[in-house]
Amino acid sequence: MKKSSLTILGCHSSIPTNKFHPTSQVLEMKGFFFLIDCGEGTQVQLRKAKIKFNKIIHIFISHLHGDHFFGLIGLLSTFHLLGREKSVSIYAPKGLKEIIDVHFKWSYTKLKYCIDHIELSSKKLEKIMENEKIEIFSIPLKHRIYANGFLFREKPSNRKLNIKEIKKIPDIQIGDYPNLKLGKDFKTNNGRVIPNFQLTFDPPKILSYAFCSDTSFYLPIIEYIKYVDLLYHESTFLKTEENRAMKTGHSTANQAAYIAKRAKVKKLLLGHYSNRFPNIKEFEKEAKEIFFNVEASEPLKTYYL
Amino acid sequence: MKKSSLTILGCHSSIPTNKFHPTSQVLEMKGFFFLIDCGEGTQVQLRKAKIKFNKIIHIFISHLHGDHFFGLIGLLSTFHLLGREKSVSIYAPKGLKEIIDVHFKWSYTKLKYCIDHIELSSKKLEKIMENEKIEIFSIPLKHRIYANGFLFREKPSNRKLNIKEIKKIPDIQIGDYPNLKLGKDFKTNNGRVIPNFQLTFDPPKILSYAFCSDTSFYLPIIEYIKYVDLLYHESTFLKTEENRAMKTGHSTANQAAYIAKRAKVKKLLLGHYSNRFPNIKEFEKEAKEIFFNVEASEPLKTYYL
Repeated sequence: MKKSSLTILGCHSSIPTNKFHPTSQVLEMKGFFFLIDCGEGTQVQLRKAKIKFNKIIHIFISHLHGDHFFGLIGLLSTFHLLGREKSVSIYAPKGLKEIIDVHFKWSYTKLKYCIDHIELSSKKLEKIMENEKIEIFSIPLKHRIYANGFLFREKPSNRKLNIKEIKKIPDIQIGDYPNLKLGKDFKTNNGRVIPNFQLTFDPPKILSYAFCSDTSFYLPIIEYIKYVDLLYHESTFLKTEENRAMKTGHSTANQAAYIAKRAKVKKLLLGHYSNRFPNIKEFEKEAKEIFFNVEASEPLKTYYL
Repeated sequence: MKKSSLTILGCHSSIPTNKFHPTSQVLEMKGFFFLIDCGEGTQVQLRKAKIKFNKIIHIFISHLHGDHFFGLIGLLSTFHLLGREKSVSIYAPKGLKEIIDVHFKWSYTKLKYCIDHIELSSKKLEKIMENEKIEIFSIPLKHRIYANGFLFREKPSNRKLNIKEIKKIPDIQIGDYPNLKLGKDFKTNNGRVIPNFQLTFDPPKILSYAFCSDTSFYLPIIEYIKYVDLLYHESTFLKTEENRAMKTGHSTANQAAYIAKRAKVKKLLLGHYSNRFPNIKEFEKEAKEIFFNVEASEPLKTYYL
């Protein structure tokens, strides 16, 4: 199993240009590929990142401003043209289903695959999906329209067998393995108890990722994203434009760093840069004054959790 | 006044990739910039072609398949973000207004500029717009859903004054110029009639452009596009796939050339290539067997009428 990672497809705000791609990213976690936001041009960025369309089953849309979903209808249409049969689940605020439906109504398209729409409306942390390996939560954000972030968390996996040590105890049969993986001690035929930690290794650390964009500087999210391994927090502006950030429902790099520090996250990724700042390293520099482990995200770069 | 020209932004069909851009083009005629179709990524292609967004007032959408309009909502949204105040007129089949409205409803966007929607539904040639310099008609096409092409035609302009010859006739006053421009002969004070052609030059030739995509091989269009200076006719396939073309409502290069020949157009541009053909020169080669003055259109190239 590959280590969980985040591939940035686009990390700029509002207007797409040849160099600036609006928000979109793919989280690979426990073998799942989660597409988060889908600005115009996402399908071309996916190709450049060599991520196979068919791996994407779950799509998360933070809010209905165009720079976060104008590429979605094109991607869904391409799925259809490529003969996709696997269904897609879309987690998004109310309205997206209507937008998608009206497109396919007027092109008289009957999709070859099924779309499951999960409408998000919660104003507090809410578990929106769970399977055997992962839990996903929506995070309430504060923006000009209803918006939420997402928290992705691996579930604890079983302990790993230490085959070398196990072989030394002839009483242990293959049928005992499941209990060992669950952490149980082993009792030999003559009553000796062998502690589990002598027979198994720790499972891999549980990793988590939080996506928070678009949002004002909003302290309530801190409790939801505590200790995540990677936090992507928007930083549309630098602190010189704090007023503009507040007025438009966005954050500065400084504020993103403050959130990261207070939430004690392992690493902070910045993004959703306004096009008015040509050098994104300025965001990193500003955030570093407050929180050391920070990076200004770049398109087509992969970050490991 | 610059000579009328057509700049191709995209000329491939269906799925956008890094190299293949879906249909979009800008016709510059008599100082107007007409955007014809608007596949995903059009706004980025416009930037690459260095066409200023603000010059575009009229947008023409042939039909509601995604590769012809999925870039429109992004472009309209960008107009808004850039503070546009000039209104936009959109000529498109029924449905597009609903699609646009639903986007802005859910993003709670109140556009800073006005959109005039002109709904196209005619099944015969119809004049859809006219101003002092240009006439525009919709051309009925034959496709899987309602689709139309467009015919753009310059209006005749006035004759140009031959100042050198005029100066030789002292009787001619500035007040006589308008009549000379309209082609009237001049009568001197002593009754001599000087024929207009001795005092003026011919006006520039009236130019015309026809856009026909997407369409099956459809003979009725011939009468509408007769003698145009430039015809863009789709050629999604080569003749080896004539059956597929027929089934999907498209044409082959061969068929496009046949239409061009029968309509006696001056030049034929091919486009809307299926991605399955990596070498677009094959389309040109096939069409040349029937019609000599043909070119396979390429993105970001400008063709003069």
